[in-house]
Amino acid sequence: MKRTFLYLILVSLSGLGNFLFAEDGSRLWLRFSDVTVNEKLFSGVSGRTDVFAASEFAHAWSQMTGDELLTQKHIADNSLIFALAKDKVVRNMRLSTEMKKLGDEGFLIRTITYQNKKLTLVAANTDAGLLYGSFHLLRMIQTNTFSDQIKVVEKPAYDLRILNHWDNLNGTVERGYAGRSIWKWDELPAKLSPRYEAYARANASIGLNATVLNNVNATPDILTTEYIQKIKALASVFRPFNIKVFISINFASPKQLGRLPDADPMRPEVQKWWKEKVKEIYRAIPDFGGFLVKANSEGLPGPMDYGRTHVDGANMIADALKPYGGLLMWRAFVYEPGDDRAKLAYKEFIGFDGKFRDNVIIQVKNGPIDFQPREPFSPLFGAMKRTPVMPELQITQEYLGHSNHLVFLAPMWEEVLKSDTFAFGKGSTVAAVTDGTFVKTKTTAIAGVANIGDDINWTGHHFAQANWYAFGRQAWSHQITSKQIAEEWTSMTFDKSQQTTKSSIVNCQLSIVEILLSSHETCVNYMMPLGLHHIFAWDHHYGPEPWCDIPGARPDWLPKYYHNASKAGIGFDRTDKGSNAVSQYFSPLREQFNNIEACPEKYLLWFHHVPWSHKMKNGRTLWDELCYRYDSGVQQVREYQKLWDKLESEIDSQRFAEVQSRLRIQARDAVWWKNAILLYFQTYSQMPIPFDIERPVHELDDLKKIKLDMKHHN
Amino acid sequence: MKRTFLYLILVSLSGLGNFLFAEDGSRLWLRFSDVTVNEKLFSGVSGRTDVFAASEFAHAWSQMTGDELLTQKHIADNSLIFALAKDKVVRNMRLSTEMKKLGDEGFLIRTITYQNKKLTLVAANTDAGLLYGSFHLLRMIQTNTFSDQIKVVEKPAYDLRILNHWDNLNGTVERGYAGRSIWKWDELPAKLSPRYEAYARANASIGLNATVLNNVNATPDILTTEYIQKIKALASVFRPFNIKVFISINFASPKQLGRLPDADPMRPEVQKWWKEKVKEIYRAIPDFGGFLVKANSEGLPGPMDYGRTHVDGANMIADALKPYGGLLMWRAFVYEPGDDRAKLAYKEFIGFDGKFRDNVIIQVKNGPIDFQPREPFSPLFGAMKRTPVMPELQITQEYLGHSNHLVFLAPMWEEVLKSDTFAFGKGSTVAAVTDGTFVKTKTTAIAGVANIGDDINWTGHHFAQANWYAFGRQAWSHQITSKQIAEEWTSMTFDKSQQTTKSSIVNCQLSIVEILLSSHETCVNYMMPLGLHHIFAWDHHYGPEPWCDIPGARPDWLPKYYHNASKAGIGFDRTDKGSNAVSQYFSPLREQFNNIEACPEKYLLWFHHVPWSHKMKNGRTLWDELCYRYDSGVQQVREYQKLWDKLESEIDSQRFAEVQSRLRIQARDAVWWKNAILLYFQTYSQMPIPFDIERPVHELDDLKKIKLDMKHHN
Repeated sequence: MKRTFLYLILVSLSGLGNFLFAEDGSRLWLRFSDVTVNEKLFSGVSGRTDVFAASEFAHAWSQMTGDELLTQKHIADNSLIFALAKDKVVRNMRLSTEMKKLGDEGFLIRTITYQNKKLTLVAANTDAGLLYGSFHLLRMIQTNTFSDQIKVVEKPAYDLRILNHWDNLNGTVERGYAGRSIWKWDELPAKLSPRYEAYARANASIGLNATVLNNVNATPDILTTEYIQKIKALASVFRPFNIKVFISINFASPKQLGRLPDADPMRPEVQKWWKEKVKEIYRAIPDFGGFLVKANSEGLPGPMDYGRTHVDGANMIADALKPYGGLLMWRAFVYEPGDDRAKLAYKEFIGFDGKFRDNVIIQVKNGPIDFQPREPFSPLFGAMKRTPVMPELQITQEYLGHSNHLVFLAPMWEEVLKSDTFAFGKGSTVAAVTDGTFVKTKTTAIAGVANIGDDINWTGHHFAQANWYAFGRQAWSHQITSKQIAEEWTSMTFDKSQQTTKSSIVNCQLSIVEILLSSHETCVNYMMPLGLHHIFAWDHHYGPEPWCDIPGARPDWLPKYYHNASKAGIGFDRTDKGSNAVSQYFSPLREQFNNIEACPEKYLLWFHHVPWSHKMKNGRTLWDELCYRYDSGVQQVREYQKLWDKLESEIDSQRFAEVQSRLRIQARDAVWWKNAILLYFQTYSQMPIPFDIERPVHELDDLKKIKLDMKHHN
Repeated sequence: MKRTFLYLILVSLSGLGNFLFAEDGSRLWLRFSDVTVNEKLFSGVSGRTDVFAASEFAHAWSQMTGDELLTQKHIADNSLIFALAKDKVVRNMRLSTEMKKLGDEGFLIRTITYQNKKLTLVAANTDAGLLYGSFHLLRMIQTNTFSDQIKVVEKPAYDLRILNHWDNLNGTVERGYAGRSIWKWDELPAKLSPRYEAYARANASIGLNATVLNNVNATPDILTTEYIQKIKALASVFRPFNIKVFISINFASPKQLGRLPDADPMRPEVQKWWKEKVKEIYRAIPDFGGFLVKANSEGLPGPMDYGRTHVDGANMIADALKPYGGLLMWRAFVYEPGDDRAKLAYKEFIGFDGKFRDNVIIQVKNGPIDFQPREPFSPLFGAMKRTPVMPELQITQEYLGHSNHLVFLAPMWEEVLKSDTFAFGKGSTVAAVTDGTFVKTKTTAIAGVANIGDDINWTGHHFAQANWYAFGRQAWSHQITSKQIAEEWTSMTFDKSQQTTKSSIVNCQLSIVEILLSSHETCVNYMMPLGLHHIFAWDHHYGPEPWCDIPGARPDWLPKYYHNASKAGIGFDRTDKGSNAVSQYFSPLREQFNNIEACPEKYLLWFHHVPWSHKMKNGRTLWDELCYRYDSGVQQVREYQKLWDKLESEIDSQRFAEVQSRLRIQARDAVWWKNAILLYFQTYSQMPIPFDIERPVHELDDLKKIKLDMKHHN
């Protein structure tokens, strides 16, 4: 309350409260000093006051109140108690049965009356569980949902909730749009940036418990003794926050680093090399997580270089990890020119089902192609019934406007995770076939490709923080809705507005949540509606280039491969008359996707080559509908600009201006997309853009000349 | 009819009639071969069949019908008769009284019954009158308004209807946006481009009868013997079309060319030099028109260089011209730093009223500043009660989007010409105080700065042809409305659509006329509404640069001089509390302009410095109204795009595409203007852009960096 008072003084001094505190966004959603909390909410903390969870809570409390949270030797009224299963308060309250269900990382938070005192109990089986409970309690305070009648039980959906950093050892980030890598490898292990701890805290606050430090396009160097020491230093920072460290490895490391003649998994010296290397790592980092491998994919080495299979390669390394409890995540993102690219991962891996070691897990991108604005789920989900499979989502917006576009990805991921594969009958959602419900495995996991860089606000776009946040929350619980996540994040990230009225705060949050929740569909509309995919520019995957034609290029790296536009129509025929990719799905999906009338229109051009004059369900022709979709994307972004600009007095000036500026870029880009796509496809459809639609303002020939100077790495 | 038949065959062969004939616009509004006319409309031509008018008509007729118009020795049924006043048919029809009223250039066209035959009579006092009658008759046929009950009497409002070419002898055009000069000085006099005749015909068809060949920023070279021969050659081409040739001269010519010590008008050698030079010209070109002079203006030499006055300078040259009936047009466009620029021409010239020779006419720009998108009329109109004054209009769109923006200028000129000066009481319009109604003069005149270049379509933008057309029509008659002109031009320029239905032609023309008539107000809205003026970029006068600040620049060449934006408000205080420019107007205008409540809002910021929160008549604040005006300009251009795109099947493909392309530029530019102006002035108003308005999509700082590579000359 002290802070509030001080704040009010400052506001009245300045006369312009909303411009008072420039905010750089560095605090993410952990803006404890902005939270108004009654100092008397807790009289003090008791129980396991020595656990890390308690110290994290106390630290936040002091930021919220300006006071220390006193440690109580004896329980008092309004005590906050941290307790483990064996503790007396848990036993006395007869919570043991419930506690058993929590597993290693779950927790309960409950208002109890104990020794005639009203208390708030946070209980778990492990320190990690208490940590998650502590952040959950903080979130309730931050979002103003704490009360004296709390009854919360939570446990995570997946065992491992992992960030994949595509960070290179030279400090660049592949598909990174928020500056350079946060890992300052040159300075490690001697110097530890304070950002490492902040990173770990942010992850813990949303339930993430693992990280892969380096790019899947890995260099062997990460396995040198020098780098192992650097990794060890990071692991030490992350350990209290219950974050396990993994690395991506290069399959050819034995050859490159170990100077062996090759990296053939059947060669005993290779196997030995891996065993020695793993041993070295675990000696340095006993709780090391394991490896992530991209092999025989996009030019990277792998077992097939030696006539071996993915199984041979994976199992060999898994055997090395096994003695230490290490996990091997092996990516299924493989494709070679030839058959329909959307079919290749399935074709390659389906025959290996049941053949991997039990500490191998296959990492599968959400869609069969590559993190497009919208894809149907990969048919590998549910198809491998005796193999652990983990979803790989992309938090960094490689294909969704980089850090310039405001696109909240939770709805897209929710759509994927809740998609029914029908693999084990109705209800076999992607979530359920990967979280252990149907496929019993030692470990379940979910990965998200990080959008974090060394920008002061971590993610470039302030709203891209919401995607980091959302990935953590969905990895913890796939029951939580995108709306809940949007509301939580907004409330935590923007609710500090003591200077405005309660109702203006509510309106502000309603606007932001409205923007967040519709933003993915908006992006799909102005980029690739109705199942269109991969019509991006060759290099940067930012702007449109459906015309892209590079002589000699791999056909499956060219947009025309995907859109197949001609005077006859547009779309990829994946029906049984085409590539028959539909056959990789279980019934009844396979029949539904195969039938142009039954196929959901959002996947229409993914599965069908469709005449321009095809009648859509709303009676429009395909061409007209395409036009309206693109235009609605444009109009929707303009609507976001209006909504945002209205909030100027509610938002600190720096974040307001920075988001405003990026929305302007997004509005221009949406027009660019619409103009480029419609003018280009119009050369095939030869139909007019419906006349009630705002007209293009560019010439196709000029748009074709645009060459952005955007590198993979920034 | 033959052509129609052939056309239909071609159309049915092609199957895509509207794409059949690419049109380059070179034929202007004289597209006779597209006109459908009954071959039997005229049985033949009789009367003065040897006049140029008859041969022009016959030439057009043959294009319309594919047949020759036969010369009839004796009058037959449906004869077309050209006759002069003294001819028998005129005398017999008792038309002599009417004929006297026609003056030198008027004509009448009448359906008469003569010798029991139904005839169409074109009669005039001169060959020139017959020529204008002939083109009037053709226009009636082109616009489908000819009937067998015609009764037309026409005579021009001004004696001289002049184009001013700002063409330099090196082939560039100052403020030219349609390629280089049409005058190929290097080739003259030996080679005569066929464009010279086409140019003369186009001018004659709309009643123009004079041209100033070269830039008012004139070089002495135009007066060399070599150039006089070139001018003579052009004059020969123009003569049959009743077009007189003038040139702009440099006041320092005697010094530069004649090697005299100076060009002091009081120096006898100077006077002699001019007399000799004029004599030389008239010897070569006996019907030479005279000179146009820009003196002591924007760095050009003039009598004030020698302590003499504009009167001294003008009268000296007028005396040289006098023996030959030559006219001297002396520009009042003078201003020096100091007092309010809008007052300076008046201040300089008002004292000279009545002091000029009778063959001097003062050429005054329509507004007191410089051809802005909208200005109130110059207070010199009506103020010089004993001096001939001629309006100077600008056809070339120096300040109205060059040849990229579709802006029909007739409504702007109509607004000026019909403005009441109150100089001689109510009804003393700008037209009436310059056309001889109130100020009796030997010669009345009106000039328009040409927008013609050597582009195949003459004017860059196909629709800029309409401004050339409109200037001619308004110079002929200031009674004609902009709507009539727009309808005529549209019908003549786009009506050739045999391939479409009658109703689609009507719709097409309605759309084009709708665009034309609202386009000036639209341009004002997205460039400079509410009396804002001269907030253009320094050099090119194309884009916005209200922030422009060039150290050491003349203050009256900087936008801030004109907009005066500050936190207190915006606008130029020209009331009696400010520069008192209002005092140069007659009552009751002066009081009306002086009073912020009475001042027309379209001139509000021209005459007043107005607080941002000022309440407009519609209840909005000034700031809000400014925002809505700019936005409505943007939305209106987008509406033009829709209207135009709908016409695709009605317009030939080349003109359709070229206009479509420029409308796209205009739409982008309108957004640029709106964003630049609102974001810049918002730094002063500190008020939000109303939230129902589409938001800016650029950053002010980025807009400030735009530097167009546009030269004065192209």
